[in-house]
Amino acid sequence: MTCTLISVGTELLLGDIVNTNARYLSQRLAELGIDVMFQYTVGDNAERLKTALEEALKKSEMVILTGGLGPTPDDITKEVCADFFGIPLRSDEKSLENIRSYFKNKSAVMPESNLKQAMLPKGSIILENRNGTAPGCIMGKDGKFIAVLPGPPREMEPMFESGVVPFLKRFSSGVIKSHTVRTFGIGESAMAERVSDLINLKNPTVAPYAKTGEALLRITAKAESEEEAEELISPVIEKIKNRFGELVYAVDSESIEQATVALLKEKGLTVATAESCTAGLISKRLTDISGASQVFDCTIVSYSNEIKQKLLGVEENKLKKYGAVSPIVAAQMALGAKKISGADLAVGVTGIAGPESDGTDKPVGLVYIAVTDGENVKVKELLTGHSKGADCRDYNRTVSASNAINELRLFALKFPDAPEGSMNIKEYIKSF
Amino acid sequence: MTCTLISVGTELLLGDIVNTNARYLSQRLAELGIDVMFQYTVGDNAERLKTALEEALKKSEMVILTGGLGPTPDDITKEVCADFFGIPLRSDEKSLENIRSYFKNKSAVMPESNLKQAMLPKGSIILENRNGTAPGCIMGKDGKFIAVLPGPPREMEPMFESGVVPFLKRFSSGVIKSHTVRTFGIGESAMAERVSDLINLKNPTVAPYAKTGEALLRITAKAESEEEAEELISPVIEKIKNRFGELVYAVDSESIEQATVALLKEKGLTVATAESCTAGLISKRLTDISGASQVFDCTIVSYSNEIKQKLLGVEENKLKKYGAVSPIVAAQMALGAKKISGADLAVGVTGIAGPESDGTDKPVGLVYIAVTDGENVKVKELLTGHSKGADCRDYNRTVSASNAINELRLFALKFPDAPEGSMNIKEYIKSF
Repeated sequence: MTCTLISVGTELLLGDIVNTNARYLSQRLAELGIDVMFQYTVGDNAERLKTALEEALKKSEMVILTGGLGPTPDDITKEVCADFFGIPLRSDEKSLENIRSYFKNKSAVMPESNLKQAMLPKGSIILENRNGTAPGCIMGKDGKFIAVLPGPPREMEPMFESGVVPFLKRFSSGVIKSHTVRTFGIGESAMAERVSDLINLKNPTVAPYAKTGEALLRITAKAESEEEAEELISPVIEKIKNRFGELVYAVDSESIEQATVALLKEKGLTVATAESCTAGLISKRLTDISGASQVFDCTIVSYSNEIKQKLLGVEENKLKKYGAVSPIVAAQMALGAKKISGADLAVGVTGIAGPESDGTDKPVGLVYIAVTDGENVKVKELLTGHSKGADCRDYNRTVSASNAINELRLFALKFPDAPEGSMNIKEYIKSF
Repeated sequence: MTCTLISVGTELLLGDIVNTNARYLSQRLAELGIDVMFQYTVGDNAERLKTALEEALKKSEMVILTGGLGPTPDDITKEVCADFFGIPLRSDEKSLENIRSYFKNKSAVMPESNLKQAMLPKGSIILENRNGTAPGCIMGKDGKFIAVLPGPPREMEPMFESGVVPFLKRFSSGVIKSHTVRTFGIGESAMAERVSDLINLKNPTVAPYAKTGEALLRITAKAESEEEAEELISPVIEKIKNRFGELVYAVDSESIEQATVALLKEKGLTVATAESCTAGLISKRLTDISGASQVFDCTIVSYSNEIKQKLLGVEENKLKKYGAVSPIVAAQMALGAKKISGADLAVGVTGIAGPESDGTDKPVGLVYIAVTDGENVKVKELLTGHSKGADCRDYNRTVSASNAINELRLFALKFPDAPEGSMNIKEYIKSF
């Protein structure tokens, strides 16, 4: 089975948004063993869309279109596709009901224009939209298929998974299976060097890639069946795990926060955070995980020195002598959060996200992370190396939060023992 | 002048990387008044690249290709294009010199394979690469043009600016200029209905689109000069602003948090937040804005009822009687944050992000947002309507945070007056 993608939307041709749908679909289709031959992007223009459709159907057996299913008159994808196959549209009762209840759930009145979204090609497979109003559909003619999906990724992705994947599985021969080993605390090229022997493998293939502050290895196997593919992959994963030890935090799609929350749950530990430069990002990310309430207690975001003193008990003389961005302040912030919350573990983070400096000679991108259980504390100094550019603030905050979550993970891994590099917290504070 | 883009690279068809080049070029071409008709993506395959080239040159006067200029045998873009126009390649001395000095500057030996990169179509305009080894080129035949650029954005973008833009300016007549009016608190279709007269305009055009929780209107004008385009657009922006009033939070690229932080700065106001379901996301987003420390004070993320009582002073009997997700708890959280911080304004947010319910019969997606200045409080009930699905938690938290930031904006807009719908906070608390 071969497939061509058509992304519809003038906003794409104007460069207003990046086409992440094409990437998502390409990746998933590759995993399903379906070759994507071409990707097209066209504007909301019937004539040009028709041309693209014509060309695409010459090149492949299936065309997947995204975008242009909205309620407004410039949304024409479904209409052009149905017309191309000569299939009439008719109002679909169930879709209409879904659209009506979508508005009802929001206590909103359905605008007349949304009626259009329930008009679907006669005899097509209708794809329910659980995250929006526009249903999708799959229509076929003479052994060729067109799938039409909404543009917003949060509507498109679940619809593709629940509606298009089962349809495609009928046609795919063999499978391509991938797993990703995720590490934290090692650079991409250093990682690649340590697995240079594996990178030369043919099946499975091993490919390194980098993601903000993390280094990943993707292992991909082609085989007749899923089981066979798994058998090819699993010894390679084991080898990688043995080589990198604690640096590996998860296999596959788990984020560092997912892995950490799962570990805390498993160990029955709770956590509180005191955040300065990350300003709630650690807490936001830990609680992105559903059920995090079992392990997450509270956060104090202390942007001002006053709050650091008043709520967290950071000492004024330490702030004066060492500045807000210092190892001792990170440690006292963590201790303060531990005391306020009574959580088992607490994290304190203070740093300079930039792009402006903090008025001292400390560099932008300098961050101190402390984790404590009330007895011991481990403080990490991080220097991100990003001190300018439009994205430096965002990068520094993201990397600081990731590192803090990883420090929490490493502390929890050893708990109730103290991790390497930690000190008795009273002695640590006294040493300043 | 019309243009079609072709992105070359199997990694794009496999979904390994997102196509940011297409976005960059589309945006820049729109600014130069050149219509991008189509975007194609093809793999590193001579036959299919030729097909795409053929189709693209039928549709537009110019084709810009990116990618496939590397030193390895699968890099074939330049070869296919030259062959298509029937132009022979020859080694270009200056390019060869540049490639040699590139390696010399890195104290590296030039691999033989890089010689291929200096092979360029005879008589073409050669585009120097200041950030890599692959030169680009522009070739023409019978009034049609092909530009070939390297794939890495850091090589492609400067080459486009210094080499392709001056070439294009010979052909472009006039400019296209866009502005975006950003609204918060109205759906896309409801918004579109209220500007249906404007959507029918020909120049400028007005197009509605949606972004998580927000509705935008893009106004685009074609004109001889930038000034003329602005003259066409500005009365339309004024009309939209008058029609939507406070719902409009910004024109162009500002986010709701940028607009809000700017307003707080302008009015000299500071803010603190008490967050439950958003768990630091409001604080994170406000402090995304560099210089937010002038207006942002602190946040308490109170996931547990204990912290709500102990730190924020939410009354136990209120929690028992109304539950943690209730208007009174939002109000008391806001008041608690106001008292702890001494900030001018404080926000309290409590809700059910899901996907699990909170054990009561309250629906997932129910959120209460309170804003107070210590005197008055305004409480908003939000029902997002998203109660299931993989992204419901993320969606609900994002939309809750956006609404909370918008409520803060609306409160600050009227300050020191109390906004419509607010009440004296003492009386409000007494009423429960």
